[in-house]
Amino acid sequence: MKKLINDPLKVADELVEGLVDAYNGECKFVGSRSIVKNDIPDGKVSLLVGGGSGHEPIYHGLVGRNLADGAACGDIFAAPPPNIVFEATEEVNRGNGVLYLYGNYAGDVLNFDLGAELSDDEDIDVRTVLIWDDVCSAPPTEKDKRRGIAGLVPIVKMAGAASQVATSLDELEAAARKAVLQTRSVGVSMSPGSIPATGKPTFEIEEDQIGLGMGIHGEPGVGEIPMTTADELTPKMLDLVIEDFEKDDEVEPLTPGDDVLVFINSLGATTMMECLIVLRKVKAELTAKGISIYDVMVGPLTTCQEMSGISISLTRMDDELKRYWEMPCQSVCFSKMEGRYGGQK
Amino acid sequence: MKKLINDPLKVADELVEGLVDAYNGECKFVGSRSIVKNDIPDGKVSLLVGGGSGHEPIYHGLVGRNLADGAACGDIFAAPPPNIVFEATEEVNRGNGVLYLYGNYAGDVLNFDLGAELSDDEDIDVRTVLIWDDVCSAPPTEKDKRRGIAGLVPIVKMAGAASQVATSLDELEAAARKAVLQTRSVGVSMSPGSIPATGKPTFEIEEDQIGLGMGIHGEPGVGEIPMTTADELTPKMLDLVIEDFEKDDEVEPLTPGDDVLVFINSLGATTMMECLIVLRKVKAELTAKGISIYDVMVGPLTTCQEMSGISISLTRMDDELKRYWEMPCQSVCFSKMEGRYGGQK
Repeated sequence: MKKLINDPLKVADELVEGLVDAYNGECKFVGSRSIVKNDIPDGKVSLLVGGGSGHEPIYHGLVGRNLADGAACGDIFAAPPPNIVFEATEEVNRGNGVLYLYGNYAGDVLNFDLGAELSDDEDIDVRTVLIWDDVCSAPPTEKDKRRGIAGLVPIVKMAGAASQVATSLDELEAAARKAVLQTRSVGVSMSPGSIPATGKPTFEIEEDQIGLGMGIHGEPGVGEIPMTTADELTPKMLDLVIEDFEKDDEVEPLTPGDDVLVFINSLGATTMMECLIVLRKVKAELTAKGISIYDVMVGPLTTCQEMSGISISLTRMDDELKRYWEMPCQSVCFSKMEGRYGGQK
Repeated sequence: MKKLINDPLKVADELVEGLVDAYNGECKFVGSRSIVKNDIPDGKVSLLVGGGSGHEPIYHGLVGRNLADGAACGDIFAAPPPNIVFEATEEVNRGNGVLYLYGNYAGDVLNFDLGAELSDDEDIDVRTVLIWDDVCSAPPTEKDKRRGIAGLVPIVKMAGAASQVATSLDELEAAARKAVLQTRSVGVSMSPGSIPATGKPTFEIEEDQIGLGMGIHGEPGVGEIPMTTADELTPKMLDLVIEDFEKDDEVEPLTPGDDVLVFINSLGATTMMECLIVLRKVKAELTAKGISIYDVMVGPLTTCQEMSGISISLTRMDDELKRYWEMPCQSVCFSKMEGRYGGQK
């Protein structure tokens, strides 16, 4: 795969520089490799995201208006080291605490926790909420083993809105926990992306197989199944999400009348054409179950280079989450006007 | 390439159905294969876009709030036939005229022109503005031979905003013509996408070569050049855009102090990581020339399936175009809040 880059070892640094340029004065490059908004108000409860690079437009693309205040950026597919987490924390902190909100991967947890310790030494109040929306990565009784995948985009969107109105770190933490609890995803992988520094594929899979529940780097999921049609695969994926709401004691099952936010994510090379064809089937299936689509997101927002694959995420919406969702936001990853499709003309 | 679809011959129909679902009540499926907003006000000067499917999120993804009122959707890589153009025209028409705004391809011109004739028979006032931003497809003296590529996204964005405030078809046509005249793009292609119905690649290119100026389906451009680094290729691409402003008698050269909108587009499989690395170099080059970046767009908005490649588009902004740009918009292709990066907190 041809990659339009420069030094393969400087890809992460250069892409974050480019990201700062994309924000055209709204954000700055901080410390070793973080991006932070310029205009965080005094006393704001701050929101920090982050993770490995190479998945653009997440994680660092989620810094923006009514979104995250900053992001600690790791190297390609690698967690940001503690000093980067700490540098970002110091820069976003406005004296009212900082929430770390990121995907549940061992390397990220280790490094963000060390960053939190460094921040604690400087009397910065830090809390952590982990994102674990991938229902295929562990059963609901072992959520600490679940991975964060595309569901992190709506979660960060809503937490970012909550951070604009939260008066305490407790309040923001509770909002983020609710968004996490109500968001579940299932993904499939069809072909790998390549590692920029080596050109090697991130995993291998047969031409006629797809990985059901496979993670965004090729981590194991439910297993491999034969490649099939969109209309055959979509209900299987959707059922895994819906069953997870049923099996998990911490959350109510999805029932007729519930409002869900639907997010169809492409892992990179899967076209929006395919995402829309899948969405069409998701809509038909949810409608048949009496579950109402509150709003829709679709696009390549959580990627792994030119990997092909797709995920379906559902977030059950209550009045509080709807309020956060309906706030406008703007970033390189995701932007929206106030309101929702069909709800505001 | 594995494609998550159903019947390969129904891909275009099903994706437009999915697109309507993505808009969740804000748009409807019209006639044979068009998408039209539900809430077009009486007396509005209407804006209709369209073209072949398979390039999602354009063209039909540009229907939305402060954007196009509707889109006539062709089959994969094929122009919409005249009846589809006419059905969409009838549906968007509110008695104050309809502007057709689409990429300059022979098939699209033929079919939209026939659609305009059918509309004229029904006393619907139709005008046409063609988009021809690809400077590598013909010299500036032969703009009628130039293709429309990614520059159509900012052009439709601004024309969509203009259509909200225009009081006559003349006014909207003039705004769209200005946006077209001030927008120029150069693209490179690195590897082909595949045709959904056959799995065949849309073109062939050697592993160590890239097509400079190659069109979004593999159409000839300036020629093939060896694959190189982002920092070496970017100035070459940018110079072709800047030279085009110099060579064209219809427009002033770009000079220090000019404000430009920069759009870095991925053709599909090219990652946002790469787009951001290219943007970083574009910013450095423009800054060195004293040209000011007014705002930035980046992402896979004009695609050709999982094709890899990238384009750089510049739009010179005046007060009128800035006013249109700063209006918020929302669609599956492109959304923004009011204002611009760095200009509104």
